[in-house]
Amino acid sequence: MLDAKHIVNLEEIVGKENVYSDKAHLIAYSYDATRTRFEPEAVVFPRHEEDVSRILVYCNHHKIMITPRGAGSGFTGGALPANGGIVLAMEKHMNQVLEIDMQNLVAVVQPGVINMDLQKAVEAVGLFYPPDPASEQYSTLGGNVSENAGGMRAAKYGITKDYVMALRAVRPNGDIIRAGKRTIKDVAGYNIAGIIIASEGTLAVITEITLKLLPKPKYVKAYMGIFPSVESAMNAVFKSLSAGANPVAMEFMDDLVVQALKIKLGIELPKDAGGLLIGDVDGNVIEEVAFQLETLERSFRENGVQDFIVAHTKEERDKLWIARRNASPSITIYGSKKLNEDISVPRSMLPEALKRIYAIGDRYGFKVPCFGHAGDGNIHVNVMVDGKDAKQLEAGHRCIEEIFELVVEMGGTLSGEHGIGTAKAPFMHIAFNAGELQLFKDIKMAFDPNNILNPGKMGL
Amino acid sequence: MLDAKHIVNLEEIVGKENVYSDKAHLIAYSYDATRTRFEPEAVVFPRHEEDVSRILVYCNHHKIMITPRGAGSGFTGGALPANGGIVLAMEKHMNQVLEIDMQNLVAVVQPGVINMDLQKAVEAVGLFYPPDPASEQYSTLGGNVSENAGGMRAAKYGITKDYVMALRAVRPNGDIIRAGKRTIKDVAGYNIAGIIIASEGTLAVITEITLKLLPKPKYVKAYMGIFPSVESAMNAVFKSLSAGANPVAMEFMDDLVVQALKIKLGIELPKDAGGLLIGDVDGNVIEEVAFQLETLERSFRENGVQDFIVAHTKEERDKLWIARRNASPSITIYGSKKLNEDISVPRSMLPEALKRIYAIGDRYGFKVPCFGHAGDGNIHVNVMVDGKDAKQLEAGHRCIEEIFELVVEMGGTLSGEHGIGTAKAPFMHIAFNAGELQLFKDIKMAFDPNNILNPGKMGL
Repeated sequence: MLDAKHIVNLEEIVGKENVYSDKAHLIAYSYDATRTRFEPEAVVFPRHEEDVSRILVYCNHHKIMITPRGAGSGFTGGALPANGGIVLAMEKHMNQVLEIDMQNLVAVVQPGVINMDLQKAVEAVGLFYPPDPASEQYSTLGGNVSENAGGMRAAKYGITKDYVMALRAVRPNGDIIRAGKRTIKDVAGYNIAGIIIASEGTLAVITEITLKLLPKPKYVKAYMGIFPSVESAMNAVFKSLSAGANPVAMEFMDDLVVQALKIKLGIELPKDAGGLLIGDVDGNVIEEVAFQLETLERSFRENGVQDFIVAHTKEERDKLWIARRNASPSITIYGSKKLNEDISVPRSMLPEALKRIYAIGDRYGFKVPCFGHAGDGNIHVNVMVDGKDAKQLEAGHRCIEEIFELVVEMGGTLSGEHGIGTAKAPFMHIAFNAGELQLFKDIKMAFDPNNILNPGKMGL
Repeated sequence: MLDAKHIVNLEEIVGKENVYSDKAHLIAYSYDATRTRFEPEAVVFPRHEEDVSRILVYCNHHKIMITPRGAGSGFTGGALPANGGIVLAMEKHMNQVLEIDMQNLVAVVQPGVINMDLQKAVEAVGLFYPPDPASEQYSTLGGNVSENAGGMRAAKYGITKDYVMALRAVRPNGDIIRAGKRTIKDVAGYNIAGIIIASEGTLAVITEITLKLLPKPKYVKAYMGIFPSVESAMNAVFKSLSAGANPVAMEFMDDLVVQALKIKLGIELPKDAGGLLIGDVDGNVIEEVAFQLETLERSFRENGVQDFIVAHTKEERDKLWIARRNASPSITIYGSKKLNEDISVPRSMLPEALKRIYAIGDRYGFKVPCFGHAGDGNIHVNVMVDGKDAKQLEAGHRCIEEIFELVVEMGGTLSGEHGIGTAKAPFMHIAFNAGELQLFKDIKMAFDPNNILNPGKMGL
């Protein structure tokens, strides 16, 4: 437990009403989407950047560990106080959209703003913030930046890092750092924003984010390709994209997911569908949308698509997307617990990668339903086990490790969008050599010599 | 001079034919586009990554300073051995396009590849590498990445950092670092590529670059807007972009540049043109190109354009672009030496920024013709002085310093695309506070504790 004097001193900084160390709060802030639990010793709600700076100075001096937290919706433990200390929760006060600059197509937000709230605010004025992680309804932009969140629209529009123009952040020594500008070009000094993005709260505490916005495309249509096999669908992914298609999204579901959708949710899908691709295309003019659909259909047909469906109305589009939206909840028919990973490989490796991932699953006797963002090479791989069977769980983890080894061997990455946190920290050695891991440590030390910021994450 | 034993030892690593310390070579490698001169003590041509690693280990041990160099075409001294030591020149051996991966839309290149050579190679197979610095005919991709080069197409397509998917680089201790992947999403570990980009060779030596490619748009047309004043042109820039236009480029020339083009080069332009905007629009379908032109024309007319011209053929397009291509050489009519800076401000600040920049010039009695990449807020500001008049030169530098102060006050940056190097190092204190400068130093120290890599740059 945090010494009582520290509680009093923190209360002095942020006010009594913004420091909690009662059991209920400690439990409430011990979770994220991993379902692992680490209780903090206190939860502190900073009111503004100045509070953050003063808290960091205090904690740095007393070597009290700090875990910054947005919504706690991460899949890898990034927001969990793995080594105790305080949770610095941004949701209560630092949750405002500060500005939508229509003239420069920029939004300035505090880290606790929920992704969807920004999306709605900018769409109301005809603009567009593309990054749409599956958690968009509740995850915060501070968390999105810290984990470099992806989403479905990454195939065309890229990921969070592609939209961060500037950050304000506080170093453990209390220094307030302004990184980047509200300009497209800025090459003065090191790209500090670039290294803070995806650093999982281990380098600095983000206090303000300046995000690039786009004009909202006028037309969107959805498409679905029904393929006889996973392999034909996977071939269609990279072949359609290299043929010049640029869909907003290209989401994949394999045969196991298709079966599960039919069995568990009664969703109508063709009997013999061995793989689905679902996505959107968009454009400023309807002819661009038509061009995209034609390019996709041509490539899909060359790769054996059984049926190519286009949704013209909003209702038809919602209906097409039902399958994708229910992919994750449906697959529990294969096991009570899913060990879900979000590997990413170069798109042309998808057919081979999926084949070999299924083969690994077969060797362990596990079903491994796969779905996800094929258009950018990022697949959610779900090793389904009986969560109550310790042996199965352990075998499941070995199965995952083999999958990671395969993916890295194929030029892919441990994580496309979920991050490393605590969950994937044990696997860092598969992806990085000793020199690379040492460089991570050296950078961590440069920002945070006392190792107070989110220690124990990313294998640091 | 480098001790003879070091020359012998370096020759042992890369071969006698790849180490030079004769006067002719030392002079040849003492220049860049700044025209400042710093002679190295030796020039070394590594054959491959392994050479780079061995050279760095050797030099790190003996504390011999190293300046990596591409074409030496930079405007801020980034490739100059400001403190002596050796120049590590990539042009001779490490200049190959290693792969154009049509399936994943990726190119893998060595740092010494010339930008235009890559552009041509990928366009030959229907692909597109957008970053096009004015030096594209001779600057290298290693230099482009090290300075985070921009160019004309940044308005729509972004800058070099938006295309770097992965790097290989060598730390001063010889460790070979692989940063990033050939995947759109990769969030495992710190974004090392992100911090090496724009670091001007001060953190690591880049040995391989993986770049994102795009399908080449099918249609391109050029437009020109002739405005009565700089202010109306500057208003048209941000108003057309916030109205949804997304031109490839939107280049600006002010009235001084227009007059110079007419007087010096006899280029036909309207008599009373007070500002020009020239650019391209592109698309996969001709209707998208038409949509872009309509959106531009509407906004331009709302801001008082006198004439809006569209070039439909390649010949017409080349003719429209003549004015922009000759902007830089034309303005010498205002002074024998131009002190050219590449400031960048949020686009909506352009009208006010230009007005105040001219006012500063007036106070000093200098003409300050401006042109450049208005579509992304990046303007080349040229303080024209008599290069043989020491007093004028000194006043010119004070004038530049005032302009920097103004730009930073308006939320802009010292450099949009040229970098800091030695040329702008004295002005870093205007843009960054003590804590920010300290962070730069801490990061430098983390990568390069002996400070052997390109010392004296960026104010470090």
